[in-house]
Amino acid sequence: MSVQTRTISLSTQGNADIQDITNQIMQIVDETGLEKGTVTLFTPSATSALTTIEYESGCISDLRRLFDEIVDPQRHYAHNARWGDGNGHSHVRAALLGPSLSIPFVDRRLTLGTWQQVIFVDFDNRQRRRELVVQLIGE
Amino acid sequence: MSVQTRTISLSTQGNADIQDITNQIMQIVDETGLEKGTVTLFTPSATSALTTIEYESGCISDLRRLFDEIVDPQRHYAHNARWGDGNGHSHVRAALLGPSLSIPFVDRRLTLGTWQQVIFVDFDNRQRRRELVVQLIGE
Amino acid sequence: MSVQTRTISLSTQGNADIQDITNQIMQIVDETGLEKGTVTLFTPSATSALTTIEYESGCISDLRRLFDEIVDPQRHYAHNARWGDGNGHSHVRAALLGPSLSIPFVDRRLTLGTWQQVIFVDFDNRQRRRELVVQLIGE
Repeated sequence: MSVQTRTISLSTQGNADIQDITNQIMQIVDETGLEKGTVTLFTPSATSALTTIEYESGCISDLRRLFDEIVDPQRHYAHNARWGDGNGHSHVRAALLGPSLSIPFVDRRLTLGTWQQVIFVDFDNRQRRRELVVQLIGE
Repeated sequence: MSVQTRTISLSTQGNADIQDITNQIMQIVDETGLEKGTVTLFTPSATSALTTIEYESGCISDLRRLFDEIVDPQRHYAHNARWGDGNGHSHVRAALLGPSLSIPFVDRRLTLGTWQQVIFVDFDNRQRRRELVVQLIGE
Repeated sequence: MSVQTRTISLSTQGNADIQDITNQIMQIVDETGLEKGTVTLFTPSATSALTTIEYESGCISDLRRLFDEIVDPQRHYAHNARWGDGNGHSHVRAALLGPSLSIPFVDRRLTLGTWQQVIFVDFDNRQRRRELVVQLIGE
């Protein structure tokens, strides 16, 4: 058993930019040489989040619409009133979707479904550089 | 320390069919013989999700109403327009609720609350057979 | 490699009382003496949840507004009709936000972002005492 920690670097556009990070995670699992265990993905940020989806333009646009509707960027936010940085909606969206995801791997392969990709969602209101944490515990 | 991976097979009705999978997980923990560690649950699917709730008909119906309201199946979805499979809402709901859940166990028992059950929610728009991944890391 | 399990005790006001538990988790990581691994946080309750946010009064109030809007406590809930305990909305909110969170630690430090705190959200409709489970697997 061992613990292996890596990072994934991303450049994002912000504003609910959704990126497919499945291949980067697969490559990390492969590089560690571990046969089986759990991958913990974590975004060290309060304005971005992780989940899975079928990564095709329809689903991506449908997911973005949901967040536009339930956490509308055009409204008043107490965070913006206090700090003036205009990304109050980004914080609420990120808290709701969540910063972590855990995926088992077996025989050096992620146990993802055929149409299921891992996505990073950057809810901030500007371009960002991001470093995600990818930690494997396994053998 | 070891990694133990099992699966749970389910037949679901789709359309936000919510099933209590607590007993199946407890049984797996028991069968592995591990004393303590973390159970990672993962659904290898882009149209289903996992969480916990008090599994009684009132809570189940209240949770289903939430998804009917914030991700209404009767609306236009870009996914449906592109692929014609009618489950655009299922993808958005599953991405929001999330595919993974991590639960510590101690003395061979899940650390669940008295009124807390683990549920699998199948958001797809038809009957499905599902295989969930249940992975334990512990000793 | 070892498994270390601790608890955090909290007194909450309920009604979406949001508490910053980052320091308690940091202290537990420090006390175990483990260098690197994954912390699994779990609330053994069906009316509370965990996530991360920038813990300042603006974000906290914006997040509470979201839940007031999408899971309004003033509406009819089937859970309340059946059990009469008035916390039907608490159950739906907790199921949506989720009971678990996984955070990698490296060099005895949580891999949180600079403005990112771990929060416990008590959605129940009254004061509660809570015991959260904090389990580390690492070396």
